[in-house]
Amino acid sequence: MTHAQRLANVRDDMQHQQLDAFVVPHDDEHLGEYIPPYAERLHWLTGFSGSAGAAVVLAGKAAVFVDGRYTVQVRHQCEAALFEYRHLIEQPALNYVLDELSSGARVGFDPRLHSRGWFDAAQKKLAAKGLELVPVTTNPIDRHWHHRPAPEAHPALLLSQEYSGQHSEAKRNRIAGQLAADHIDAQLLTQAEPINWLLNIRGRDIPCLPVVLSFALLHNDGSVQLFADPAKFEGLDLAAHSGHNVSLSPFDALESALRELGQNGARVQLDPATANAWSSLILEQAGARLVFADDPCMLPKACKNPVEVQGSRAAHLRDGVAVSRFLAWLDRRLSQPEPQLEDEGTLADKLQALRAENPEFVEPSFATISALGPNAAMCHYHHGNGTPRTLGQDAIYLVDSGGQYLDGTTDITRTVAVGEPDNEMRKLFTLVLRGHIDLACARFPAGTGGVQLDVLARLPLWQQGYNFDHGTGHGVGHYLSVHEGPQRISPKGSAVALATGMIVSNEPGYYRENAFGIRCENLEVVQPAETDGDIPVFGFENLTWVPFDHRLIDTSWLEHRHIDWLNSYHANVWEKISPLLSGDDLTWLEQATRPL
Amino acid sequence: MTHAQRLANVRDDMQHQQLDAFVVPHDDEHLGEYIPPYAERLHWLTGFSGSAGAAVVLAGKAAVFVDGRYTVQVRHQCEAALFEYRHLIEQPALNYVLDELSSGARVGFDPRLHSRGWFDAAQKKLAAKGLELVPVTTNPIDRHWHHRPAPEAHPALLLSQEYSGQHSEAKRNRIAGQLAADHIDAQLLTQAEPINWLLNIRGRDIPCLPVVLSFALLHNDGSVQLFADPAKFEGLDLAAHSGHNVSLSPFDALESALRELGQNGARVQLDPATANAWSSLILEQAGARLVFADDPCMLPKACKNPVEVQGSRAAHLRDGVAVSRFLAWLDRRLSQPEPQLEDEGTLADKLQALRAENPEFVEPSFATISALGPNAAMCHYHHGNGTPRTLGQDAIYLVDSGGQYLDGTTDITRTVAVGEPDNEMRKLFTLVLRGHIDLACARFPAGTGGVQLDVLARLPLWQQGYNFDHGTGHGVGHYLSVHEGPQRISPKGSAVALATGMIVSNEPGYYRENAFGIRCENLEVVQPAETDGDIPVFGFENLTWVPFDHRLIDTSWLEHRHIDWLNSYHANVWEKISPLLSGDDLTWLEQATRPL
Repeated sequence: MTHAQRLANVRDDMQHQQLDAFVVPHDDEHLGEYIPPYAERLHWLTGFSGSAGAAVVLAGKAAVFVDGRYTVQVRHQCEAALFEYRHLIEQPALNYVLDELSSGARVGFDPRLHSRGWFDAAQKKLAAKGLELVPVTTNPIDRHWHHRPAPEAHPALLLSQEYSGQHSEAKRNRIAGQLAADHIDAQLLTQAEPINWLLNIRGRDIPCLPVVLSFALLHNDGSVQLFADPAKFEGLDLAAHSGHNVSLSPFDALESALRELGQNGARVQLDPATANAWSSLILEQAGARLVFADDPCMLPKACKNPVEVQGSRAAHLRDGVAVSRFLAWLDRRLSQPEPQLEDEGTLADKLQALRAENPEFVEPSFATISALGPNAAMCHYHHGNGTPRTLGQDAIYLVDSGGQYLDGTTDITRTVAVGEPDNEMRKLFTLVLRGHIDLACARFPAGTGGVQLDVLARLPLWQQGYNFDHGTGHGVGHYLSVHEGPQRISPKGSAVALATGMIVSNEPGYYRENAFGIRCENLEVVQPAETDGDIPVFGFENLTWVPFDHRLIDTSWLEHRHIDWLNSYHANVWEKISPLLSGDDLTWLEQATRPL
Repeated sequence: MTHAQRLANVRDDMQHQQLDAFVVPHDDEHLGEYIPPYAERLHWLTGFSGSAGAAVVLAGKAAVFVDGRYTVQVRHQCEAALFEYRHLIEQPALNYVLDELSSGARVGFDPRLHSRGWFDAAQKKLAAKGLELVPVTTNPIDRHWHHRPAPEAHPALLLSQEYSGQHSEAKRNRIAGQLAADHIDAQLLTQAEPINWLLNIRGRDIPCLPVVLSFALLHNDGSVQLFADPAKFEGLDLAAHSGHNVSLSPFDALESALRELGQNGARVQLDPATANAWSSLILEQAGARLVFADDPCMLPKACKNPVEVQGSRAAHLRDGVAVSRFLAWLDRRLSQPEPQLEDEGTLADKLQALRAENPEFVEPSFATISALGPNAAMCHYHHGNGTPRTLGQDAIYLVDSGGQYLDGTTDITRTVAVGEPDNEMRKLFTLVLRGHIDLACARFPAGTGGVQLDVLARLPLWQQGYNFDHGTGHGVGHYLSVHEGPQRISPKGSAVALATGMIVSNEPGYYRENAFGIRCENLEVVQPAETDGDIPVFGFENLTWVPFDHRLIDTSWLEHRHIDWLNSYHANVWEKISPLLSGDDLTWLEQATRPL
């Protein structure tokens, strides 16, 4: 079916339902960062395959909305005859609806695919101009999507306490106690990560995100009703693993469970930013009293327990071996006569193959960014979206990658010389590295948020008149999502205090359009730090152990303490990684970790 | 009249008005930081003389609310038989009312003395428990306050363009243009500072704050109705100075002007955080449509024009001479046989006398903090609230002071040795100074808020396990309030971008209870900075020129760049200040500014 036909089919359905517009987000029912292939409705309708976006279909026209990362890609993938291109942030989809339609118009949306927060804001915005927001019971796309991918059938994994460090019962009782104290009867959980963390389960339902897609109701006595595909738990004793007050039902039992809560007049808490509108509307219609609050799993999930931290250390050692072997292999390839045979794609494949030699490796934690020369200036570049660039033309190469291991999640970026970097590149690499070091060395009192520390990674660049246009650090899960909240290190809105056990990335960068890109990224875990002072302070324990490329360092842009840090870091890399290497790889590591 | 009698009189009035409670804030009609003596109602009623607080009178009991600065003072000043003591922030006055009274109770307040924002929040909070918030037409305190101080009768000053740098008409037209674009008919201004800035007038109505207390309506054609005491403008041609579309009326004409706006159905903008509830309620009752927004004068007032910046530079040179002469005199006194004759009060007087030798000096910009030894550990110490401490017992002395000059406002803190400072004191002084230097050297791109830079002044302390419990920097006016917004440098809520011409203080500190206090403070003005980079960045131009005490510096806690900065700073102090000194003062400056 062509995209023109798909659009026509959707419009037919809209006409039957008397809708003047239909909004198509890039989201599934769980409103997480990643969606499974069967939920790629935006791609089916428009052809656009990016990781964020939306579309609006009107009777006579349609528009697709993407952010700055995808302005080129959307023009390749979506037919201009069918779709206008708009900026997702600067020209929001609802504004398009308001510009194009007038009072009385009916705007359809699938309430499963939008958050309660979006619904409340959208309804208010449309109502102010006399437009009506209309939830559809059947998504027009689903009716016409033939050959739709089936949901993944991978079995669930019951994550043993050896990995999780805390029994589900302890996690559930702690949060249930908070709910009871706040006079909440039940917490509705609709995102996969908190549920998988809470029950110590994992899955393979989404590439790179090791979760069982599910919904859950956590009651204030600690019991949980889990809604997921029971086939994934066949042969597994969930009750013995997670607790006898954890029950499993198929997805379609959720609606009646919500109605039952409502009929009992229960006070049900949910996070309007992540819970879908559908579930909260069902609850309300049935008589539940809704309480809007942050998901109470997020903070305890972010603060890793000692077993999770120890697992992350172990995963990072294995990952450090794989990335070091990759960089050693790359240097050997470059010294051979025909290095230009390798391209960004084969480089990424090689790195993944080295990671996959570990039995604990499950899958990548995100799609590897393997970017040569000017491609590295695009922060979210993927070599699969065009013709991969080949070794031999560029001075520097950026590789941002990570792995999901049974005991932890990794994420590392290294920028290395693959040609002849000039002084400007070395200056900028050194300024980025200096910011990385300054943040890594920071100590800070209780209550300090990432917004306060962000400047430390930027200041060396700022002092010389440079900057980078992304956050400095994101939270990282434990064998879970490589991006997690609530903590982050960024210039805006990251006031959540950094606390013991939180894992964050430290990844300043610099990007020169059409020329090159630089990023230095390690993961770090927040730990108490010893001082002679009069207040307790925290610092970062480094998790990632792979050399930074000496060939890109210009020491005239560093102070003694930065050089001391680098020498100490590289001595640690040698001590931790060298016992796990041999032959040419070991020889490479020895020279890569020599003191400056 | 005793405080018991005053309380009884207020309770009589409450009974006549059928009020179960009456709320007494520490504010006047203008809701600025400082209030004139005739508005010290809280002091009249309770005896408490601090700069922030509140009281609640019930039929059978009463409470006074103060913050952490005043917990000792309130016990000295308020009779425990009449008032309970509560914490202003942790036990807010409205919670006391809610705890003590039940549904149906009537809570009186004077709508002139509370902001519209407070009114809306309080009404909602009380209504949730069935209590009624009742505006009084006559404040019971005013009816019983005999021998009340009269308002200041100082004449107004028309600030010439030589000082202001911009005609009132230009300021008014710029803001009026914004109002017109936003379909606002008029802006209500109720704080004194923006009105005095807008009309290029000054006064002496409040100690340390050189303003004419007034209200104003700025219409979207640029015209202004000013409401103030006309006696202060006798013999002055306000229209010739500020513009012919500026009219002056007495205070009691405000109400009819507000009613007239309302009757015309005008859209009137006001800042709910600063506009009093009374004026907004009058407007609403009369039919006006209220628009709540930040006061549009605040940002242009904060961004000083080049003439104001040049004036501030000149004021700081004069101020630097006075403070340097004071420190030179202090060192000479200490080398004499009986330095213990001086106490914190006489030291403060000496400093003020030296400032007053300048013809451009008008008054202090705030009450000098002159604090020896342990007294300096109290951030808001004032020697007038007890027996001043005498020289001779302590190792270090902290003096935080400033002046109002016709061309600018100053604010400087120096901490100096007056005995034998130990290594711990020198370490902590050096860490504080290092933070001061790191912030002073920062460059940053457009859009950077003070919340992002605050860490730079704290990090040297944090690294060693220390911190200080106040913001790092506040905005400073131009011959106006020494504390102004919207910019500030602090860990919380200071996202307003620093922009060219903003003056801010840079004042990290360290306080050890019952032992000593340290603070290093200069004022700095935001200016564009030159780099070789690819984005425009800003930096700080230093305004304050007085030596930092070498005797308190332990260079082992500094890096080379800090020592370079200090040597360069002291060379500048010598170059700028030495031509204005002579004799012993000049000799003192020479040794005080020698390179480290």
